[in-house]
Amino acid sequence: MKAAILTIGNELLSGKTLNTNSQFLSIQLNSLGFEVVKHLTIEDDETNIIKTIGELTDEVDLIVTTGGLGPTYDDITISSIAKSLNCEMIFFENVMKDIKEKFSKYNSKMGQNNISQAYFPKKSIILKNRYGTAAGMFLEHEKVSVVSLPGPPNENTPMFNEFAMPLIQNMGNGKIIIKDIVIFGVGESNVEEILNEEIEIDKEIRIATYIKPRYVVIRLTSKDGSTIEKISKLIVKIFGNKVVGFDDINLEKNVVELLKNKHFKLSLAESCTGGMISSMIVNIPGSSEILERSIVTYSNRAKVDELNVSTQSLEAYGAVSETVAREMVEGLYSKTKSDICVSITGIAGPDGGTKDKPVGLTYIAIKSSKGTVVEKYNFFGDRNTTRHKAALYALNLIRLELIE
Amino acid sequence: MKAAILTIGNELLSGKTLNTNSQFLSIQLNSLGFEVVKHLTIEDDETNIIKTIGELTDEVDLIVTTGGLGPTYDDITISSIAKSLNCEMIFFENVMKDIKEKFSKYNSKMGQNNISQAYFPKKSIILKNRYGTAAGMFLEHEKVSVVSLPGPPNENTPMFNEFAMPLIQNMGNGKIIIKDIVIFGVGESNVEEILNEEIEIDKEIRIATYIKPRYVVIRLTSKDGSTIEKISKLIVKIFGNKVVGFDDINLEKNVVELLKNKHFKLSLAESCTGGMISSMIVNIPGSSEILERSIVTYSNRAKVDELNVSTQSLEAYGAVSETVAREMVEGLYSKTKSDICVSITGIAGPDGGTKDKPVGLTYIAIKSSKGTVVEKYNFFGDRNTTRHKAALYALNLIRLELIE
Repeated sequence: MKAAILTIGNELLSGKTLNTNSQFLSIQLNSLGFEVVKHLTIEDDETNIIKTIGELTDEVDLIVTTGGLGPTYDDITISSIAKSLNCEMIFFENVMKDIKEKFSKYNSKMGQNNISQAYFPKKSIILKNRYGTAAGMFLEHEKVSVVSLPGPPNENTPMFNEFAMPLIQNMGNGKIIIKDIVIFGVGESNVEEILNEEIEIDKEIRIATYIKPRYVVIRLTSKDGSTIEKISKLIVKIFGNKVVGFDDINLEKNVVELLKNKHFKLSLAESCTGGMISSMIVNIPGSSEILERSIVTYSNRAKVDELNVSTQSLEAYGAVSETVAREMVEGLYSKTKSDICVSITGIAGPDGGTKDKPVGLTYIAIKSSKGTVVEKYNFFGDRNTTRHKAALYALNLIRLELIE
Repeated sequence: MKAAILTIGNELLSGKTLNTNSQFLSIQLNSLGFEVVKHLTIEDDETNIIKTIGELTDEVDLIVTTGGLGPTYDDITISSIAKSLNCEMIFFENVMKDIKEKFSKYNSKMGQNNISQAYFPKKSIILKNRYGTAAGMFLEHEKVSVVSLPGPPNENTPMFNEFAMPLIQNMGNGKIIIKDIVIFGVGESNVEEILNEEIEIDKEIRIATYIKPRYVVIRLTSKDGSTIEKISKLIVKIFGNKVVGFDDINLEKNVVELLKNKHFKLSLAESCTGGMISSMIVNIPGSSEILERSIVTYSNRAKVDELNVSTQSLEAYGAVSETVAREMVEGLYSKTKSDICVSITGIAGPDGGTKDKPVGLTYIAIKSSKGTVVEKYNFFGDRNTTRHKAALYALNLIRLELIE
């Protein structure tokens, strides 16, 4: 079963509004077993809507539209669909009654325009709008089904979930199971090469990769849960500790969870990342259980004052050096006695790089009961990218320390 | 001049990735005088891309594509466009050289697949990618122009702005001047109402508003530079100190600039924001001149140890209180003697709120030679939103302190 999502509205084409409806509906439709083959955004223009609906009826089994259900002159979605499919429009008394009740409940005056919102194709099933005046529509016509929802996400999301979903959920080819495996530290093309070499093609399962900034995600899609589990186990075995986890996991969630399980405290001394690592950790609810403190020692003076880094080392090796990274983490540990201490110092750019110490050079030190290790990296990208990579590699070092 | 935006990728149709590219490109193209008539998202399928490009060439003057420029087997955008337009593909030596250099610089291994990234239609102008291996393309073919950009926003945004824009900006109806005025602390509908009341309609200039997360941007578009300057001055007068600045300014850039001009140092004591403010500041090149340090005192112990907050105050008023915010900033000042010291403490949620102290309650204290001020806020939203708002309001306090 193929589906297309048609979002209608000039505010989308002007860039004024971000289209989040297509993503929401795609997730829902895919999980119901539909293959979403197209997203399309067009303006509130009758000729255009009629033509587009006509084309889509030849390509897909289900069309979901959003937008253009309001009372103003450019809200013409329903009448245009009716014209395109050659359906008679009729006045729905109960829809009108509902609109009138909403206006009287909020003591506001109904406009003449609102009457147009009660006209739908004769065979429509009306979808109730709990959060606005615009009702939606489900229409089966010859070989195509159409669902029309209002544009505002706070109206269309509940309408879809509550009223549209039950009408379409048995149209698809059975329920599809999706599992994402999140990989860190291997490039997408490498991941694909490895998958192509190691996994046999099986028509019961679809294996695809995609990028979530700085992660590679391997998505398994199948109707068969046991095939998913079998292939998932195999992939985890192949990629070993490069696997961060499943579905919506990321490094910071994983690290907070691992620290909580061990009842460990974490402290950070950040220079080039400037508080990014601690901010990522603090964004995870419950992180207060595990984060002791983070000291952003951006100036040399702060490194000396806060972490007892020696001025000799700063002069002899520079702030971005293995020695200073090590002294930072030792100073942090003396001060906080946290179970895991991490320091990070690097050249974020765009200036400040030299031949010996190029932009992107970063040292990350980690200290635990197992001792102190300093790792050296060369990150590529703009200032924000190198800093983000540095933060993720630091989180990854913490993760590896905790699972090994 | 009509334009269409074609975003290519299964990750968009599956709903895994939110399509932000279409919005970004729409804003840019509209401001250059193009009429964006269609957004279209399709899968990485050769037949489909060929057919779609063919249809769009009849409908628009400019097609902008994103996605499908990577090295893997489903990255087929360029070759499919070439087939659709019947253009010969050739190997671009300089593109290959650039890819090789990127791999060798970062000591990673180039895959065989990467070679495919150096093939483009013969007449292409190559668009450089500063942040990844996938080059982009600008192609004029008969009556249509095609711009192909990579999918990841951190690669396609700079590529569009730096390399594609200059090639297409004179395609529209004459050179267009754009000026953005960035407003903080007023809602979009308020801004619109004020503009409607205060500014007379003038057909020489287009005045539109859009949202950049947490800012409202007033975009002036005209062919006449003096009209832009006249209206811009008027708007600055109307909105006063709500105006952060122009074009790509934001609060952190503005604050770094203001501090540099005064040769001031800044120190921060962050609790709920967890390092977000310092990370935002550190993301601005040259911030090392002005940021002394930031101490993320997430635990009560850290507040006492690092900032000399009294345990009595923590017990009597709680960590999120005016008293503790004040003690934090005083402690920070004693320690650092920075010209501007700021502390922040709040309840980010989702748990931890009470009737007296709901989620979102935040205190921000600022200390300078003028004295100490503590401000109280109630921010609304999820954990990431309340923290981001808190960070921006703190930056705004610093800005107002420096300009008043």
